[in-house]
Amino acid sequence: MKILVLNGPNLNLLGKRDKTQYGVLTLDDIEKILKDEFKEEYFEFFQSNHEGELIDKLHSAADYFDGVLINPGGYSHTSVAIRDALELCKIPKVEVHLSNISTREDFRHRTITAARCNGYVSGFKELSYTSGTYLLKKLHYNR
Amino acid sequence: MKILVLNGPNLNLLGKRDKTQYGVLTLDDIEKILKDEFKEEYFEFFQSNHEGELIDKLHSAADYFDGVLINPGGYSHTSVAIRDALELCKIPKVEVHLSNISTREDFRHRTITAARCNGYVSGFKELSYTSGTYLLKKLHYNR
Amino acid sequence: MKILVLNGPNLNLLGKRDKTQYGVLTLDDIEKILKDEFKEEYFEFFQSNHEGELIDKLHSAADYFDGVLINPGGYSHTSVAIRDALELCKIPKVEVHLSNISTREDFRHRTITAARCNGYVSGFKELSYTSGTYLLKKLHYNR
Amino acid sequence: MKILVLNGPNLNLLGKRDKTQYGVLTLDDIEKILKDEFKEEYFEFFQSNHEGELIDKLHSAADYFDGVLINPGGYSHTSVAIRDALELCKIPKVEVHLSNISTREDFRHRTITAARCNGYVSGFKELSYTSGTYLLKKLHYNR
Amino acid sequence: MKILVLNGPNLNLLGKRDKTQYGVLTLDDIEKILKDEFKEEYFEFFQSNHEGELIDKLHSAADYFDGVLINPGGYSHTSVAIRDALELCKIPKVEVHLSNISTREDFRHRTITAARCNGYVSGFKELSYTSGTYLLKKLHYNR
Amino acid sequence: MKILVLNGPNLNLLGKRDKTQYGVLTLDDIEKILKDEFKEEYFEFFQSNHEGELIDKLHSAADYFDGVLINPGGYSHTSVAIRDALELCKIPKVEVHLSNISTREDFRHRTITAARCNGYVSGFKELSYTSGTYLLKKLHYNR
Amino acid sequence: MKILVLNGPNLNLLGKRDKTQYGVLTLDDIEKILKDEFKEEYFEFFQSNHEGELIDKLHSAADYFDGVLINPGGYSHTSVAIRDALELCKIPKVEVHLSNISTREDFRHRTITAARCNGYVSGFKELSYTSGTYLLKKLHYNR
Amino acid sequence: MKILVLNGPNLNLLGKRDKTQYGVLTLDDIEKILKDEFKEEYFEFFQSNHEGELIDKLHSAADYFDGVLINPGGYSHTSVAIRDALELCKIPKVEVHLSNISTREDFRHRTITAARCNGYVSGFKELSYTSGTYLLKKLHYNR
Amino acid sequence: MKILVLNGPNLNLLGKRDKTQYGVLTLDDIEKILKDEFKEEYFEFFQSNHEGELIDKLHSAADYFDGVLINPGGYSHTSVAIRDALELCKIPKVEVHLSNISTREDFRHRTITAARCNGYVSGFKELSYTSGTYLLKKLHYNR
Amino acid sequence: MKILVLNGPNLNLLGKRDKTQYGVLTLDDIEKILKDEFKEEYFEFFQSNHEGELIDKLHSAADYFDGVLINPGGYSHTSVAIRDALELCKIPKVEVHLSNISTREDFRHRTITAARCNGYVSGFKELSYTSGTYLLKKLHYNR
Amino acid sequence: MKILVLNGPNLNLLGKRDKTQYGVLTLDDIEKILKDEFKEEYFEFFQSNHEGELIDKLHSAADYFDGVLINPGGYSHTSVAIRDALELCKIPKVEVHLSNISTREDFRHRTITAARCNGYVSGFKELSYTSGTYLLKKLHYNR
Amino acid sequence: MKILVLNGPNLNLLGKRDKTQYGVLTLDDIEKILKDEFKEEYFEFFQSNHEGELIDKLHSAADYFDGVLINPGGYSHTSVAIRDALELCKIPKVEVHLSNISTREDFRHRTITAARCNGYVSGFKELSYTSGTYLLKKLHYNR
Repeated sequence: MKILVLNGPNLNLLGKRDKTQYGVLTLDDIEKILKDEFKEEYFEFFQSNHEGELIDKLHSAADYFDGVLINPGGYSHTSVAIRDALELCKIPKVEVHLSNISTREDFRHRTITAARCNGYVSGFKELSYTSGTYLLKKLHYNR
Repeated sequence: MKILVLNGPNLNLLGKRDKTQYGVLTLDDIEKILKDEFKEEYFEFFQSNHEGELIDKLHSAADYFDGVLINPGGYSHTSVAIRDALELCKIPKVEVHLSNISTREDFRHRTITAARCNGYVSGFKELSYTSGTYLLKKLHYNR
Repeated sequence: MKILVLNGPNLNLLGKRDKTQYGVLTLDDIEKILKDEFKEEYFEFFQSNHEGELIDKLHSAADYFDGVLINPGGYSHTSVAIRDALELCKIPKVEVHLSNISTREDFRHRTITAARCNGYVSGFKELSYTSGTYLLKKLHYNR
Repeated sequence: MKILVLNGPNLNLLGKRDKTQYGVLTLDDIEKILKDEFKEEYFEFFQSNHEGELIDKLHSAADYFDGVLINPGGYSHTSVAIRDALELCKIPKVEVHLSNISTREDFRHRTITAARCNGYVSGFKELSYTSGTYLLKKLHYNR
Repeated sequence: MKILVLNGPNLNLLGKRDKTQYGVLTLDDIEKILKDEFKEEYFEFFQSNHEGELIDKLHSAADYFDGVLINPGGYSHTSVAIRDALELCKIPKVEVHLSNISTREDFRHRTITAARCNGYVSGFKELSYTSGTYLLKKLHYNR
Repeated sequence: MKILVLNGPNLNLLGKRDKTQYGVLTLDDIEKILKDEFKEEYFEFFQSNHEGELIDKLHSAADYFDGVLINPGGYSHTSVAIRDALELCKIPKVEVHLSNISTREDFRHRTITAARCNGYVSGFKELSYTSGTYLLKKLHYNR
Repeated sequence: MKILVLNGPNLNLLGKRDKTQYGVLTLDDIEKILKDEFKEEYFEFFQSNHEGELIDKLHSAADYFDGVLINPGGYSHTSVAIRDALELCKIPKVEVHLSNISTREDFRHRTITAARCNGYVSGFKELSYTSGTYLLKKLHYNR
Repeated sequence: MKILVLNGPNLNLLGKRDKTQYGVLTLDDIEKILKDEFKEEYFEFFQSNHEGELIDKLHSAADYFDGVLINPGGYSHTSVAIRDALELCKIPKVEVHLSNISTREDFRHRTITAARCNGYVSGFKELSYTSGTYLLKKLHYNR
Repeated sequence: MKILVLNGPNLNLLGKRDKTQYGVLTLDDIEKILKDEFKEEYFEFFQSNHEGELIDKLHSAADYFDGVLINPGGYSHTSVAIRDALELCKIPKVEVHLSNISTREDFRHRTITAARCNGYVSGFKELSYTSGTYLLKKLHYNR
Repeated sequence: MKILVLNGPNLNLLGKRDKTQYGVLTLDDIEKILKDEFKEEYFEFFQSNHEGELIDKLHSAADYFDGVLINPGGYSHTSVAIRDALELCKIPKVEVHLSNISTREDFRHRTITAARCNGYVSGFKELSYTSGTYLLKKLHYNR
Repeated sequence: MKILVLNGPNLNLLGKRDKTQYGVLTLDDIEKILKDEFKEEYFEFFQSNHEGELIDKLHSAADYFDGVLINPGGYSHTSVAIRDALELCKIPKVEVHLSNISTREDFRHRTITAARCNGYVSGFKELSYTSGTYLLKKLHYNR
Repeated sequence: MKILVLNGPNLNLLGKRDKTQYGVLTLDDIEKILKDEFKEEYFEFFQSNHEGELIDKLHSAADYFDGVLINPGGYSHTSVAIRDALELCKIPKVEVHLSNISTREDFRHRTITAARCNGYVSGFKELSYTSGTYLLKKLHYNR
């Protein structure tokens, strides 16, 4: 299974962010963990701080991948455009958040992008990514 | 690992609920799937329509179990009391929802109970339960 | 026709409540009035202050009854769980309120449970129950 | 008993409206049903799309009638003027809605006119009218 | 000075309304009081329950009158259309309310029509009309 | 094509209104412009300040016309009744506003009537009417 | 009749304030106008920028005066304490505003102090004071 | 004097809760303190996590007790049903909170149950209970 | 123990206020009751209608007193400045209200000053003061 | 006339989007329709998913074009930056939406960008573009 | 240049307040720093906890000073009266806050007084005062 | 000291924007003013209309600069992503606005990005930049 792992703004600096919320790992560490745990799957990691590049990537995702693991970061709470792009992308999609968004500032309690994914996982740091992959595999192979 | 699977109101009738939101399986089916997929773990399923019984069960959970998988159903959006009970229960806790709550009525977009769990998973029908178990195991054995 | 009359919190003390809002009759008086006026129908009165017991009763209602007359009392304005239980119960359901909820405190102006009944009647004291029965009969025999 | 049946905007086109919400009957059909079922009572049907005409009619209602059955249609949610006119009309008044307003657009969940009637009935299509008449009779003869 | 006294919905029944809020006088009584107190002025009283008729009358007011005393009743709180009509009417305009709107239901605390009058007077029963006339005269003769 | 041009409150005084918002033309000028530009189409202009008359006219529109161009004026923001009447009228409907409603008072930013038209045009003064006609023709002849 | 004219914050600088809202007169000019127009009445003008001094003055008002004309200025929209002091003062009270508060910033549309006066007058510059006196006299001599 | 001390959800685990908010004592410790300090009074402690059981207990309270000290816990902020039960209970009632609810999450700033007690005490840990008892005694013996 | 009893606006007129809310006693009566009941403690009563004087007094309180009993009256709901002054005052503080603020106008349901006291007592008329003193003593001697 | 047709996020995938809302045409189809219908005008189509690129393009628009037809897509509801860029662009601007935004999710009912265009057209699928061009021409040649 | 430095409630106790928000300096320290850094300017420091005194001072400021540096403290968020006084004061005015108000309680995120100053500076502790002075000088000498 | 001056959307066109709000200078003029006034410091000006580019630049800022002066323009009010990027950047940061945001549209009254800077300056046109630099220097050299 080919999985696109799409990472939104500020995730390139992951290891330097607030450890209580985001854990101590970098995005590279997470990529390594995913590849170790899910050896048979192919992963492509993509990170961008640009809303438009995330949308561009989503537009071509269905042509090259079997599933999308997306962490839209701060765009989860504001981007109608990414929400619309997700609606257009007709493969399994799982939204993941490292932190538990229900415990943070009020404006992070709602995600408007998750409503156009199959579902979402929030609060388990790197495990949000691995459980998201676990879910994508199930969604893919059970179809 | 001993896992308490706590199911809130109306989940006893799972197979009869709106299939688009909740899937076609019964709670027994889900129990069977969990036991098949996670053979080395011990599961106890408990379901109640009574807010008080869910709280009672949570109070004793840490004495008998290593983790809690909780689907508070409709109480997720209203119960300050369950939120407080979760805060008191000092073992790993994962909240799961069968449906993707961010796509439903406005009053379901927020969960006030998830803020006192490690995190939550929403939208994957029975897979919410299996990925929740996957997460509990990781949280338990990685400690 | 077999009718379940489901009464929520504080209705066991009906005759003692604020007479302007609720009238002077007890729940027993209302039961007697219903049986007198609708002699051919069978009524079972059930009252509970427990949200969970009301849900339990609703779950089995379709197996034993042809219609439900429900007065959820204070739970009308807060209980997502009863709303979900009503959605699961596939027989005619009429919600009734003794008082006219649109004249009372702001938080009573909306009922979230009525949206999962056929409709609702509010403001006619004991006549809310008799007109509710009148409606259940029509819904039942006209099908 | 002389009953004024007051119908607000768009009810003249009843049979042509959304059948899921309003049923298949015309206002004439409903008039016929009322007269068939309540043979001893006198009914006058009045329909107007004009807020002012509904108010005019309410002003003289107490002089010629013993009760008012009113379906204010879309004016239920916005008309302070009809609310005030209802307050002035000192005979029994029952507000009826064909559709279950608690299941529709947010702005229909509240009625500001019902607060100046004895109570209201919502969601039973033509049966809202017959049960409304049932209630008016009880209110009238029991006084 | 020629003054149009424009009275909105339900004011035709003035003497019969809630005395605490509106006083005991009828609209005719008020007309008489105005004519007695302001003998040199010409008054035309117009009352309508129809929003459209009030607008029609406002449209021609500037051609026949030197000032408008308007009590829009319940339309004060909802009618964008009367607000726009008042904006078009280029003579002195005073809005009056018999009751003190700041003491009543929340939805009466604001008037959207007064913002297109010179100002407004609220709470003095028939004296709202006489002080309104006092003001119109000052506005007219001081110009 | 036969087009009904329905004009709401205060539009009879068009040339006298705030020129920045509404332009300098009268309704007659606009009628002339429409007939000049769209010579093959038949236009009937109707203006009323009465909400009820606008509803009455909408009710019969489908019998005599092929399309409706409606400027509900101030009723756009408040009239549930006109919204319902538009839903009942099964021919192409275009809502037009002379001013750009998104630049004005907050309560004008939303139109509740446009949601029951094919769409709406706002902000182009008399050109809102001509482009509305352009659209009606396309909707009519392309069907 | 002895009248206390109570002026709130910034009214000491009246002639220097925004002329469109407040007119060109000073508080002394207004005092002179009142005394000229109402020769038989006794007026005491009191101005303070201190909320507490306005309250102190209100507390003793009933002992020395027959009526209060109060312009609470900016305190109208925020002072629960002045509202409570007005409730305690059992003589006729008229609140006046020079500007038309319904045309200004949103937070000025409501006055919480007027609800504890007989009523209020807003928008007529110095005429708000003279009409307020006119009203006090009527309230006083008609008792 | 016989006092019912009614404790809501999670108070059975008191000593284990967040010490900053709730102090270090258990419910048994508090019972002992009350009995030590108020030796002449009789106390019955009742704790339940079930909303319904708290209501049941309130219904019979007036038959066996002279006053109620109630800590509704999380139900204070959501339970219309307990509010209604308190209204029905016609003996002195004091609501107590261990923590200062005005310093915590927004949804805890308001209590809807206290409005049907004589009053409430919040923020003094175990002293909320002793001062509540102090108040009940005064209310009882001063009657 | 030396206790400052700080009384906000309008409390100087206590015996004349609405008896249902505030009781029949004057502030002097309450002072006498406190001194009678708590003979060993020293009390200083201070009342002011001036927000600034209350703040001034709070600033020096810790130098002369061991505790503060404060009834901020109407300032409880609006004064950020008193809230900040309370935060600066590092001795035990108890806020008291004569009336039960949760039963009154919406804007009185919240107190923003209590969040910077140890806690608050509301609804027991003069007993709010005596129980507040009871609490201060406990807080003082138990430290 | 030279017209810039600026298309926001996801419009590159137009033919694949929800047909009920957006129609069946691609952006290329729309370009062709525009060029066929308005043969004398020059069109440049530009599409980007990047908010910044849309702003860049708007900044240079006035140098190369006589008018802008803009469909900001999801950015209409959130982008203060595009709103500001539109304000800076001093040529005729028409905002167009394929779908009728007043019928969709609440957050789409308002457009904050349209307030800095001459006006906007919503709901006519490809006809929104052709009528927008019709309007630009009128605005351009009538100047 | 003569500068009035106006300090609102609780700033007299500056060195004792929460150091994270306000720093460790007293108001005297700040006065000394200003005089050291801006040797050629004349400073008058004025502090009051009384809203009215701050207004009084503002009223005379333009007669004696060339600029105002104001820290309204808690009154920034509530005082319409100070806002109005600032509007009346026609010399350069800079509002300063020691703490960064956008990081604190919700009710501190907005300042209603800053809207009537040239601008404001927030978050730099004593540097807010020195940069405010820097700004006043520039505004004064560049005029 | 090396200072990065980061300018958000539309600031490249500064001299052409609304002069009342933004002044008459271009960004180049401001750069020149900064370099003239602060000769010993090194400045790098960067402007972008792309949210992502601003984030990219912030990510590397701490490696090359000693402080950041940021004017996020319209992104101040909407960008959670820039807020998060600012949190990650561990050097002194000052947010500046040319216009006084508290006087403009409601949605500009709050900045969500300033909460992750040391503080912010708003309303002084080019002086916001020079005072911001003044502050950065103080923050840098005083450390």
